Amino acid sequence: MTLQLFFVTNGSLSTEHRHNFSQLNHTTKMKRREFIKSSIASVAMLSVPSALASTAPATKKPKHKNSTIKHPAKADDFNVSMAGYTFVNFSLADTLKFMQSLDVHYLCIKDFHLPLNSTDQQIADFHRMLSDANVVGYAVGPIYMKSTQEVDRAFNYAKRVGVKMIVGVPNYELLDYVEQKVKETDIRLAIHMHGPDMPIYPDASDVWNNVKHRDARMGMCLDIGHNLRYGSDSIADLKRYSSRVFDIHLKDVTAPTKEGHAIELGRGIIDFPDFVKTLRKVGYKGALSLEYEKNMRNPFTEIAESIGYFRAVLHTTR
Amino acid sequence: MTLQLFFVTNGSLSTEHRHNFSQLNHTTKMKRREFIKSSIASVAMLSVPSALASTAPATKKPKHKNSTIKHPAKADDFNVSMAGYTFVNFSLADTLKFMQSLDVHYLCIKDFHLPLNSTDQQIADFHRMLSDANVVGYAVGPIYMKSTQEVDRAFNYAKRVGVKMIVGVPNYELLDYVEQKVKETDIRLAIHMHGPDMPIYPDASDVWNNVKHRDARMGMCLDIGHNLRYGSDSIADLKRYSSRVFDIHLKDVTAPTKEGHAIELGRGIIDFPDFVKTLRKVGYKGALSLEYEKNMRNPFTEIAESIGYFRAVLHTTR
Repeated sequence: MTLQLFFVTNGSLSTEHRHNFSQLNHTTKMKRREFIKSSIASVAMLSVPSALASTAPATKKPKHKNSTIKHPAKADDFNVSMAGYTFVNFSLADTLKFMQSLDVHYLCIKDFHLPLNSTDQQIADFHRMLSDANVVGYAVGPIYMKSTQEVDRAFNYAKRVGVKMIVGVPNYELLDYVEQKVKETDIRLAIHMHGPDMPIYPDASDVWNNVKHRDARMGMCLDIGHNLRYGSDSIADLKRYSSRVFDIHLKDVTAPTKEGHAIELGRGIIDFPDFVKTLRKVGYKGALSLEYEKNMRNPFTEIAESIGYFRAVLHTTR
Repeated sequence: MTLQLFFVTNGSLSTEHRHNFSQLNHTTKMKRREFIKSSIASVAMLSVPSALASTAPATKKPKHKNSTIKHPAKADDFNVSMAGYTFVNFSLADTLKFMQSLDVHYLCIKDFHLPLNSTDQQIADFHRMLSDANVVGYAVGPIYMKSTQEVDRAFNYAKRVGVKMIVGVPNYELLDYVEQKVKETDIRLAIHMHGPDMPIYPDASDVWNNVKHRDARMGMCLDIGHNLRYGSDSIADLKRYSSRVFDIHLKDVTAPTKEGHAIELGRGIIDFPDFVKTLRKVGYKGALSLEYEKNMRNPFTEIAESIGYFRAVLHTTR
């Protein structure tokens, strides 16, 4: 069963719409329907999967009490997503096919799957492909911005694609200009951090210090792996900075140092049960996007293991 | 890091040895070493992986307290295993390569990977391949037994392979004869159940009723999926019959009926968190073997997702 969701491509969405979209993450199918009825905008039609139903086909109840059968409430209660970068070596078609097989329905759109200079027709075709695969493109990025022209281009791209959030990395000196664009477009910016690998925005504290006095729609994409590789405490940072955590990159790593490398979720050092409990404590409403950076030329079984691992942590901590 | 374990191939192991092997499931590496020192028997040398270390490479502790880093104790505390039948369409080499990639180190040996009429040399070669892949063959089966000759062949095979347990399906009328063989060889029999698909041993209660008055080394391989498909309550049965549950087939299913089919762990109706909590309550010491029966010609990402799911349930319920 699928529901129809319409995306704006020729104008910005209202703040009310944004909040509704945010709430969507935690609502039931019925609430989704109400949301959609109340906020249909125009143009690009996407098919939103009823993820709860698909991950927990527990509708056939036994006639007698059977303690082995889980309560349907033990389905995913967050939007398990994929960061597009994971599929840098694969076509959009292959990416979507694999996501369908994993029962994952949210994607952060990366430019190699939808170039920044795409025509309106290319954008419409892209959305059609996602819709056919029951996938929603919930944001774009990461996008690097090194000039005001690149800032303009990024916000214009997000607007044309019809998303309300950019995962981005604007040079520090561009933040005043970026803030203007956020106010103009009502598009949120989630600044991505890259740990010890890049001098710019190494960790959550650095992003926080650069956005805390700015518009509330400027925040971070908390990459729990890169942040930890910088030596920072990702779970503590999620608590501290929760008001500005708009997106999360899921990752496990082997060590809290630059030498630490990506690994299948559950095989590294990150305490995912505590992490998920903290997500609930702070009332996190965004996506949880696996950005998988080990063995990127043949990552499929490793991604599947990681998604399975994360889904079980969600189910087990409820 | 690996430890050396010697398997008997030319004689039966003592009861003490069997109990030690059973304890191995829950011991630390140090305890394993002591066990091995105290129980070396002869001949086929296997390499036992230090699974705890490999699943939780959390040895590099940060200098400061970092709440994101899990306590090493959150590694697997059961032997996550594979039922050989899962790989009916794949060679032993491919099976072992895939198991290594999943960090899974225990296998129930199926006859298509090691025929019942294998020579001693073939058995030795088989063990060498497992050892090279850091995999332990912890039992053989399922083996069907429809005559006393087939019972003799099964027990002789187990003895020659050097395992202390057969997962088997002997015709009901052979149980007296099987009991004699169990007493003679000290090899345990774990009777496999097949739910509504076969008239023989449909569920755990049927196995229990057929073994409860017999030798304590006769019990069951509790297939939580097939048992549930018969309408039986696998978690309640694990509690009721725990003294005779020697092996477990992990499986998720879509419905508690014959029409219910296998599916990736976590996507079906089985409550794995409650199941694992019950394993701990009853002090289960055996293997937990994924027997994956969906999409058996291309099951790799689905198995990976299932193993990731189960591992996270183990970690999250500790």
